[in-house]
Amino acid sequence: MSAHAASSRLKVSGTCFFLQILTIILFAVFVRYSPDTSPGLRSAQLNCSSGRNPSSDSGFHHPRFRDVHLQTLIGFGFLMAFLSRYGTGSMAVNFLLVAFAIQWAILIQGFFYSFLNGKIYMEAQSMVSADFCAGAILISVGAVLGRVNPLQMLLMTLLEVILFTVNEYILLNLMGVSDSGGSLTVHTFGAYFGLTVSWILRQPHSDKRNQQQDMGHYPDVFAAVGTIYLWIFWPGFASATTVRTNAEPWAALNNYLALAASTLATFVISPLLHEEGVLQMTQVQDAAVAGMAMMGMAGEMLLTPFGALIAGFLAGLISPLGFKFLTPVLCSKLNIQDACGVHNVHGMPGILGALLGTLLTALASADAYGNRMELVFPHVADGSWTATYQAVCQLCALPVTLLLVVLGGSVVGAILKIKRLGSPPDTQYLENKTLREVSGERRERRASGEELGASTSV
Amino acid sequence: MSAHAASSRLKVSGTCFFLQILTIILFAVFVRYSPDTSPGLRSAQLNCSSGRNPSSDSGFHHPRFRDVHLQTLIGFGFLMAFLSRYGTGSMAVNFLLVAFAIQWAILIQGFFYSFLNGKIYMEAQSMVSADFCAGAILISVGAVLGRVNPLQMLLMTLLEVILFTVNEYILLNLMGVSDSGGSLTVHTFGAYFGLTVSWILRQPHSDKRNQQQDMGHYPDVFAAVGTIYLWIFWPGFASATTVRTNAEPWAALNNYLALAASTLATFVISPLLHEEGVLQMTQVQDAAVAGMAMMGMAGEMLLTPFGALIAGFLAGLISPLGFKFLTPVLCSKLNIQDACGVHNVHGMPGILGALLGTLLTALASADAYGNRMELVFPHVADGSWTATYQAVCQLCALPVTLLLVVLGGSVVGAILKIKRLGSPPDTQYLENKTLREVSGERRERRASGEELGASTSV
Amino acid sequence: MSAHAASSRLKVSGTCFFLQILTIILFAVFVRYSPDTSPGLRSAQLNCSSGRNPSSDSGFHHPRFRDVHLQTLIGFGFLMAFLSRYGTGSMAVNFLLVAFAIQWAILIQGFFYSFLNGKIYMEAQSMVSADFCAGAILISVGAVLGRVNPLQMLLMTLLEVILFTVNEYILLNLMGVSDSGGSLTVHTFGAYFGLTVSWILRQPHSDKRNQQQDMGHYPDVFAAVGTIYLWIFWPGFASATTVRTNAEPWAALNNYLALAASTLATFVISPLLHEEGVLQMTQVQDAAVAGMAMMGMAGEMLLTPFGALIAGFLAGLISPLGFKFLTPVLCSKLNIQDACGVHNVHGMPGILGALLGTLLTALASADAYGNRMELVFPHVADGSWTATYQAVCQLCALPVTLLLVVLGGSVVGAILKIKRLGSPPDTQYLENKTLREVSGERRERRASGEELGASTSV
Repeated sequence: MSAHAASSRLKVSGTCFFLQILTIILFAVFVRYSPDTSPGLRSAQLNCSSGRNPSSDSGFHHPRFRDVHLQTLIGFGFLMAFLSRYGTGSMAVNFLLVAFAIQWAILIQGFFYSFLNGKIYMEAQSMVSADFCAGAILISVGAVLGRVNPLQMLLMTLLEVILFTVNEYILLNLMGVSDSGGSLTVHTFGAYFGLTVSWILRQPHSDKRNQQQDMGHYPDVFAAVGTIYLWIFWPGFASATTVRTNAEPWAALNNYLALAASTLATFVISPLLHEEGVLQMTQVQDAAVAGMAMMGMAGEMLLTPFGALIAGFLAGLISPLGFKFLTPVLCSKLNIQDACGVHNVHGMPGILGALLGTLLTALASADAYGNRMELVFPHVADGSWTATYQAVCQLCALPVTLLLVVLGGSVVGAILKIKRLGSPPDTQYLENKTLREVSGERRERRASGEELGASTSV
Repeated sequence: MSAHAASSRLKVSGTCFFLQILTIILFAVFVRYSPDTSPGLRSAQLNCSSGRNPSSDSGFHHPRFRDVHLQTLIGFGFLMAFLSRYGTGSMAVNFLLVAFAIQWAILIQGFFYSFLNGKIYMEAQSMVSADFCAGAILISVGAVLGRVNPLQMLLMTLLEVILFTVNEYILLNLMGVSDSGGSLTVHTFGAYFGLTVSWILRQPHSDKRNQQQDMGHYPDVFAAVGTIYLWIFWPGFASATTVRTNAEPWAALNNYLALAASTLATFVISPLLHEEGVLQMTQVQDAAVAGMAMMGMAGEMLLTPFGALIAGFLAGLISPLGFKFLTPVLCSKLNIQDACGVHNVHGMPGILGALLGTLLTALASADAYGNRMELVFPHVADGSWTATYQAVCQLCALPVTLLLVVLGGSVVGAILKIKRLGSPPDTQYLENKTLREVSGERRERRASGEELGASTSV
Repeated sequence: MSAHAASSRLKVSGTCFFLQILTIILFAVFVRYSPDTSPGLRSAQLNCSSGRNPSSDSGFHHPRFRDVHLQTLIGFGFLMAFLSRYGTGSMAVNFLLVAFAIQWAILIQGFFYSFLNGKIYMEAQSMVSADFCAGAILISVGAVLGRVNPLQMLLMTLLEVILFTVNEYILLNLMGVSDSGGSLTVHTFGAYFGLTVSWILRQPHSDKRNQQQDMGHYPDVFAAVGTIYLWIFWPGFASATTVRTNAEPWAALNNYLALAASTLATFVISPLLHEEGVLQMTQVQDAAVAGMAMMGMAGEMLLTPFGALIAGFLAGLISPLGFKFLTPVLCSKLNIQDACGVHNVHGMPGILGALLGTLLTALASADAYGNRMELVFPHVADGSWTATYQAVCQLCALPVTLLLVVLGGSVVGAILKIKRLGSPPDTQYLENKTLREVSGERRERRASGEELGASTSV
């Protein structure tokens, strides 16, 4: 038993070592800081980058430079927002995943977006993009929590970062989709990727009792801090990812109003669904995250405050309904244990956000947008595309993402399964137990003896 | 019993639904985004707004545009700072109140400040003003906590937002008072409004045992996080609300020094007042909030660092003295249960801050202020007012606010009472019990059975 | 007993009062706000300051003005990051120390850096410098925690601020060292100063059982919030202390990558060192702090992303190794109770960071740095020094700091000892007990009776 536990610990340690050394070597060979930090060089660089890839300006995140210090937020905003669900037992592992995902995302995204003369030129923008990617990873982890061990999580991260970047590249650069807040690229992608992997890794005799135990001792503290965090930083962050100063405030205001409306919505719907009626902070937080997922694509497109209120209200309604009616069905019919409810909080609001963005795109007219048109829809503004064509692109982005996610998630899930079968057969049973424990309470683990606790630890 | 609980739950749900739909309709009819986000249009808009209301620039909050992402802070800064007092049981309800107050404040303030051709033009500034208003609401809630149910809180929010805006409009626009940090408009208004309502709702047989139980399980964690939060963001935020770049740093530095001095002051006075002598984090936090309330008006007027130290020191002394000597008197004589001590933390420091601001205004001279004069006291700088006249205005603002607060609070309290009498008589007793429980510990509620817990929940 | 407790309480109260009044008087006599807040005056002021001290621009912290609101972070970032180690019992005292250190540092640093015509001119920069100083104080407190009472901590703060400023002045202004992130001036200074004081205050019969008890009830919550905090703000903050906009992003990116690599490193090494294998959040946090200490000096010098990864990886390896092998040796051989492990988290990574900075300086060439050279190494850029000479300066800064720290720490420790002997002999035994309790759990204190708990409290 303890021999297995020790070997499991060493495996995680060795894998981390291998991955870090690999990353360092790849960074040494490929990654250099972009010289565009001095103003003269910067404009030159920008010219060549726009020459290289004319459409890359439309959707990819070009932060304004001064805001770098606020733009490492997103991954950690998500992290903070999720801690109440992950429970303290898996907190440390989530930091590991984020730390690796960031490095890996800088590399992979660099190959796609800023590979020039054999070098990747890293700049402040790389941090932001890597943080977006880490956000998607954390969403997926929320869906598979309790079914995978840390080693599998690392492998999943390795593969998901690649898939995330491919999907983002196809959507933003090849298809010209506008999705600055990541309704599709982050929320929908992360949620359904994780759910697909979770489904592939399903087990016939899944123990449903453990499902709702992934709460640490401080769910309310974390949920309150995380919700305040989202309220404070999200509107500003969402607007910071839009390139130009002029287009900025509307995205911030739309997010702000959507957050307010989704909070009210959860107070409307939750008392109707739950007998006990005490509204937990986690539900308020779910509403905030759902509102934010909803506004991802539409945030910079919405022109009217009441539109943001309606969208946020819908997002706040959908999430509790999903928890009440959809999660049990998913669990009983498809055997998908969505421990953190990512389908309700990220998946459905993300899809709705994409549909809303499509609708707004179809309705876009030069009259309504004015000189904002060239900021939000550059292809439409320069006359190369009609608004309808842009809307078709936005709409097609949804099935493309879902297709990629299901295919990619199935492959990744299959790989994780193979990997798992490779472990010594006599630990199979043990692993099942301890896997579930990752999301369990540490207290419980201690009580249940060392031979169980050790093998999930790292 | 459970029928009543269910009806209470449905009432909250229905009220939220009604309020959100009402807000959406009003937004749809009246609110549009201000077109001033593009530079050209912006200056045009500013011209017409200053033409419309020449004195509005003096006191109202014109954030610099780039700082939008830091300016949704205040309501949530307050919220964070208060969580240690509210207890986890009422956290979720506070988010509801904030979410509603923000939407409602944008509407009401819009009618007063930016109503043009039948439309309210919303901009980043609207978020900041709405956050200030939400801050005042949260202060008031701290005073009535334990005497009102969620439904009454929503109704109080509805009415207080209107009164807050009327008071702010009278002070800043009609009287030309300078109060950029809200000593009067936020802290004094919020505290005494809440206390008046609390007094109106007093009950002959109030149960004093329950008074000190509104602590969640994590008061120290919340107090520590909230205090750090205030330290980090407050100086910057306070300065962000002053319009012009030049006047900025002094307000930040004054707040910073006042926070430091008020913290020392609480370590001076608390050991003298309390036998047990262990200083809790909540006391440190109270000192920080009091220092901040004190600097609200004077922050941008103080010209000397030692002045800020003295003011902060006084604020830090007053707050523990109030808790020791005044709160028991208020409770026994006036039967005001000031559960969160808002009188000590916001009320008295706010009044002192207003008096300090008045003194500084009377002493203001062109020599000392230089070209800063036109930023802080535009009426004095352009020669239309003397410093003495401005000081009289500042001084008059205090009784005006108090008068409005007492009248308004009495009316609102009376309405809440009527409203309450409207509920089925057989639930009267029950309601009293459960009202107190809102501020109690949830643990307790569970122990005491479901029929009580359910009716306060939402 | 209780008489002593009361006298101890009154002593702290009286000391705080005395220190605050002293500070107010000194501020009244010496400190004025710098008039450089208006653009015209500002340039004049800057001219005269650069005329007065031509080399002061090289290393001292000149924040860009707009970022004031993010630059009160550091002391509180440290505070937040440390709370998990301090335990809730000593939280409030730490706020006291920070509040006093800030005021005192503004005075002392003012005499060194901005004393002109008998006045200290305070500006936004003063806040940042004072925060750096408060950070060093908090590190030292982490080393002496459990051996000193609040009174001694205040006295230590009083003296350490002076020593910190002397050391910083020697390094940055006299020797022309570049250390914008404080590898030497903050981390190394704070850690070894605290360890020296702790060694001087060692006792023959130290009770090792109490050593590992300085954990509050919420170590994981604090560690998680603190780690996220460091991740979010540190990269931006580190870059904000570098003067010029152009040099900025590399410092941020280097810190960002170092944080990611040090997190992975702790997952590599910790499972090898610890049998139980469950990685706690505090270890993840230690890795983050170590990575940050490592990047202090080198952050703005590193030109390659993989260099930051390697440096962060080393920092993340060293810290757990130190906890496993060095801390027990320090405790048994030198009788240094490094309760918070500052030697592992700040001391060693700080020294390593200084050595790395020296190496990078020696390798600096005009080709590699381009016009960045004059920003990072002004003396080298203007031809007055060679890169080798600058590197020798950087290298010499380490022994200079260590020498000053050991001498200063010994003197301060001796003073604290005298001070202590001055207390009534019959309380000697009591004090020993209660001192240890400062870092203990409050729960324990309550159980053990009031006569012990009272004398450490304030």
